[in-house]
Amino acid sequence: MIVVIKKDADKEKQDRLVDWLKSMGLGIHVSVGEYQTVLGLIGDTSKVDMDLLESLDIVDSVKRVSETFKCVNRKFHPDDSVVEIGSVKVGGGHFCMIAGPCSVETEEQIVTVARAVKAAGANMLRGGAFKPRTSPYDFQGLKAQGLELLKIARAETGLPIVTEIMSADALPLFEDVDLLQVGARNMQNFDLLKELGHFGKPVLLKRGLANTLKELLMSAEYIMASGNEQVILCERGIRTYSDYLRNTLDLAAVPMLHELSHLPVIVDPSHATGIARMVPPMALAAAACGADGIMIEVHNDPIHALCDGAQSLKPEEYAALAKKVQAVREVLA
Amino acid sequence: MIVVIKKDADKEKQDRLVDWLKSMGLGIHVSVGEYQTVLGLIGDTSKVDMDLLESLDIVDSVKRVSETFKCVNRKFHPDDSVVEIGSVKVGGGHFCMIAGPCSVETEEQIVTVARAVKAAGANMLRGGAFKPRTSPYDFQGLKAQGLELLKIARAETGLPIVTEIMSADALPLFEDVDLLQVGARNMQNFDLLKELGHFGKPVLLKRGLANTLKELLMSAEYIMASGNEQVILCERGIRTYSDYLRNTLDLAAVPMLHELSHLPVIVDPSHATGIARMVPPMALAAAACGADGIMIEVHNDPIHALCDGAQSLKPEEYAALAKKVQAVREVLA
Amino acid sequence: MIVVIKKDADKEKQDRLVDWLKSMGLGIHVSVGEYQTVLGLIGDTSKVDMDLLESLDIVDSVKRVSETFKCVNRKFHPDDSVVEIGSVKVGGGHFCMIAGPCSVETEEQIVTVARAVKAAGANMLRGGAFKPRTSPYDFQGLKAQGLELLKIARAETGLPIVTEIMSADALPLFEDVDLLQVGARNMQNFDLLKELGHFGKPVLLKRGLANTLKELLMSAEYIMASGNEQVILCERGIRTYSDYLRNTLDLAAVPMLHELSHLPVIVDPSHATGIARMVPPMALAAAACGADGIMIEVHNDPIHALCDGAQSLKPEEYAALAKKVQAVREVLA
Amino acid sequence: MIVVIKKDADKEKQDRLVDWLKSMGLGIHVSVGEYQTVLGLIGDTSKVDMDLLESLDIVDSVKRVSETFKCVNRKFHPDDSVVEIGSVKVGGGHFCMIAGPCSVETEEQIVTVARAVKAAGANMLRGGAFKPRTSPYDFQGLKAQGLELLKIARAETGLPIVTEIMSADALPLFEDVDLLQVGARNMQNFDLLKELGHFGKPVLLKRGLANTLKELLMSAEYIMASGNEQVILCERGIRTYSDYLRNTLDLAAVPMLHELSHLPVIVDPSHATGIARMVPPMALAAAACGADGIMIEVHNDPIHALCDGAQSLKPEEYAALAKKVQAVREVLA
Repeated sequence: MIVVIKKDADKEKQDRLVDWLKSMGLGIHVSVGEYQTVLGLIGDTSKVDMDLLESLDIVDSVKRVSETFKCVNRKFHPDDSVVEIGSVKVGGGHFCMIAGPCSVETEEQIVTVARAVKAAGANMLRGGAFKPRTSPYDFQGLKAQGLELLKIARAETGLPIVTEIMSADALPLFEDVDLLQVGARNMQNFDLLKELGHFGKPVLLKRGLANTLKELLMSAEYIMASGNEQVILCERGIRTYSDYLRNTLDLAAVPMLHELSHLPVIVDPSHATGIARMVPPMALAAAACGADGIMIEVHNDPIHALCDGAQSLKPEEYAALAKKVQAVREVLA
Repeated sequence: MIVVIKKDADKEKQDRLVDWLKSMGLGIHVSVGEYQTVLGLIGDTSKVDMDLLESLDIVDSVKRVSETFKCVNRKFHPDDSVVEIGSVKVGGGHFCMIAGPCSVETEEQIVTVARAVKAAGANMLRGGAFKPRTSPYDFQGLKAQGLELLKIARAETGLPIVTEIMSADALPLFEDVDLLQVGARNMQNFDLLKELGHFGKPVLLKRGLANTLKELLMSAEYIMASGNEQVILCERGIRTYSDYLRNTLDLAAVPMLHELSHLPVIVDPSHATGIARMVPPMALAAAACGADGIMIEVHNDPIHALCDGAQSLKPEEYAALAKKVQAVREVLA
Repeated sequence: MIVVIKKDADKEKQDRLVDWLKSMGLGIHVSVGEYQTVLGLIGDTSKVDMDLLESLDIVDSVKRVSETFKCVNRKFHPDDSVVEIGSVKVGGGHFCMIAGPCSVETEEQIVTVARAVKAAGANMLRGGAFKPRTSPYDFQGLKAQGLELLKIARAETGLPIVTEIMSADALPLFEDVDLLQVGARNMQNFDLLKELGHFGKPVLLKRGLANTLKELLMSAEYIMASGNEQVILCERGIRTYSDYLRNTLDLAAVPMLHELSHLPVIVDPSHATGIARMVPPMALAAAACGADGIMIEVHNDPIHALCDGAQSLKPEEYAALAKKVQAVREVLA
Repeated sequence: MIVVIKKDADKEKQDRLVDWLKSMGLGIHVSVGEYQTVLGLIGDTSKVDMDLLESLDIVDSVKRVSETFKCVNRKFHPDDSVVEIGSVKVGGGHFCMIAGPCSVETEEQIVTVARAVKAAGANMLRGGAFKPRTSPYDFQGLKAQGLELLKIARAETGLPIVTEIMSADALPLFEDVDLLQVGARNMQNFDLLKELGHFGKPVLLKRGLANTLKELLMSAEYIMASGNEQVILCERGIRTYSDYLRNTLDLAAVPMLHELSHLPVIVDPSHATGIARMVPPMALAAAACGADGIMIEVHNDPIHALCDGAQSLKPEEYAALAKKVQAVREVLA
């Protein structure tokens, strides 16, 4: 950590600051420049409060030079992690194609869609049973019953199932779910993250609408620090001033997360754009920039979907897209 | 709800859409213009999926003309709501001054600060016991023990206590807390909001970092629809491209929320700015634009605070600020 | 245009509003609903001030249902436009590869880079002669001399040249430039746009850092309404809360602009990301989502470039990227 | 400037970097830590390209520790600057009340409004003659004729006049304007800024919609470095995800700009909010947080204003607001 002291700062205050830092067990390297003095802090600075230092009137600025995340950090784990969900691998060259409806509605619906997406090339099935909805008056999902329907679809197709968990209370219901999704709104629900760390099953962690990559990595760190290394990151669009689509898909996050972390990174173009016809170009772009998978909403009857039909592809559209994604991956391999 | 049909849209598709809408029990008023046809939907449109409609290729755009929030809406409740926390009233002309340390640390600390802020003009005591922290390695609060220390400080001073709840699991510990705070990261933790609706104690609901005013009101609606009318809204800064301070305090939200809703609105300039010397001007600005209260961090020894000391005022600074806030309120009354 | 009147609005005020709208030559279609009255305005509403209407106390909301842009609108021009810059075509299936250094520095530099990028597959040469710099103390470009060096490089390689114009005053110097670039900061320099409309040479219009797609299209409309149809749009990253890269590349703008407008759309991943190693993945993503070209910074000696070297590829890196871009385009054709 | 070298960086590359930096005339102070090596650069680092350094593979991060702005910097000019516009002073305790219509329309209109705002407490008159409009089809102002009408209004009332300049070409027409406004869209029109530096008349520089405070200060630096010290800064709202009002008024910019710079800072709540009834609370908030003035749109007949009527106050509303602003300033003095 580097602390820049203001020009003409009171010498006595500066000495008191250095003493205080030393009292925390840190080594201090002072270098006096023409315009300012710079303190280099050596040792374990993870307990030092940067904001507090920055607020001192003699301090110009503070910079942390070593990241505070450890488990997720590529520096300490240079090889790509591969997360295994049943027989499906994700990361390190393994690409996943997650598809399915926004919400699980009926057995017929989920089994039909599961068969269709499997035939089209998907290797995991998604479907919402617990739905986070902005309005208390909107459909909130079939809950436990929806999970049972997903298991039936899995039995019929062999596809591992992915579904969202909103609260640690519901964990007992998720014992037999293959990949537990943490939605954007819960990315910083730290109590939930810790419980998922203890639970031990693979987690798909979506980036929050206004969260930085470091915050996403710190949330993954919560899960990993609690003992669970099976984490997949997911870019799903951020909130910006730009409002022509639901969110702004930040695809550069894919190569950047790969640089910062060894964890797999997938992309959800359906929720990011909110419009079915925007999904194929953005899915292809995700594949082209190195994503480890894509998660796409597919519905056999979009016009009657209870939720988010606007962003769902029809199975034949998904099949056509899956072929192109495959072709892009092959020419870039 | 208004649906604008594209010029030259297929007539048959248009008829099918109208039939489908009618099948949902809606009346449809068609007006044919020079450039487009407009469908006016009459009846209960709360179940209609706007996104789905917008995704249809014959549809140009969709606009909801009646808000989906009811309980929080000023239209159906023209008078200001007054929330009562013990003997303290908030809203409808009653101004609250909430103050205290970021985290509860020791009995001596919280009692000392409580006495100091009471003497300086505060009428509620804040202090974090459960702390949401970006990093799993940061101090997470004294938890249950912190709540006990807050109660001791309340007993010593008579100030009602305000503290953050992060998970519904912890509710039994909050039976004797006066005002339960939902933090920005949990604004859309819908399971928690519903439980707070049933719990029945007053709730301080902070706006999320990237949430719109409508989303904030819908989150308040979750609490109210579950039976609890004691909700105070709190503007605490939003995340924007602007990075010279921690967040951008959106003070215009205060008069706008007052227009949309009857609920009281307070402002937290400490978390918004993250720098103690920016707190007084922004607190005065909050009072000047009509806030129903301000929540400010005060610490008796900022340099040693375990967390967020950078944004805490000293008691004497708070006392000076409280006098000015009072003066501004008087000349504007 | 649709005007929604508030429930229980004063009837007399409403009549006055209708009269005033009629006095502007508009037809008014009134439909009275359960919760509100809706006025449909028929005729030329381009002179109606939406903001003014929205500010009236009896008005709930106003929605414009026909876009105000005409020349750029795909509705009135369904086929893709093809812009011709010398022998190079852009749009309608023609892909351009614009490459070159951030700044023109010396004859040797620009000729060397021009040859290298041509050999690597580029079909246009970029290079800054007039440089917009945030600081008055930074290098501002070689100006007229830089333009002469670009022409020498064009003579040596046959590549058409692209360079930025910052002020209409300088237009006489640009008579022999093939494609005039309007930078992000000047996207709403309306006086410059009008002059470029009269000037008649092809224009590359970059999206501003915080501009919506409609604003970008309205700026293109300024050029086209002044008589110049040769306009190429360019997505180059927007400013968001996300700060791990210089800007957030908004690739979904590519398919969306193609839907709204017939103009070609290219992408500049160099300025968007600001880091050379992020350029190849984002260039490939741009090709995959349907861009009509990419503009990339290439420098023969990045470490000594006067400006923006951090985001420049070496010629061999560019050649490798160009091959992959070509491969992606072929499998998606 | 501080350059942090990555752990395990190639020693030879590191030596080459140090040599290259020395070749630019800089002194280099190397401090080797446990996790990284830090280079402190001593001397004139204004020519060093931070982005280039950051792009090098051995470099972890780079931090500039001395600001590149000089003329505007409070460090080198501790006292508040006072800008004089005719007999009106702004800054250093002098508060300005600028008011007038969005656009100058007719002699009767501008003279009537000028008299009304003077009577209500304004000490400068604003009015747009050259109007930046998003659409080429919108009213663009009366131009030179509008300037003449403003001068008539000045002659009638004695109020100095403030009006926007969009292009350096028009400067000869502004010889007799008292305060030249640079609008948000032109904040980084560097050619215009330089010309205003040479022109020498007081300049009101508005912050761009997505510009940082440092960029605003660097734009002021352009004017001051060209020889003109008469600059007033203006916060007028930024573009964020929040869309309930036209822009998000960033009032904390006021105390922050006062800390960074000695220049006066005023606030424009009319353009920030776009709604007349939001102007009074935000104007009061601006006064409460220390602004040196407020600029407000006032129109004698809002319903018929050609432009932006929605955000204009009526004279009697302005008079009531002016009294409250004065009262707030008095109790905070």
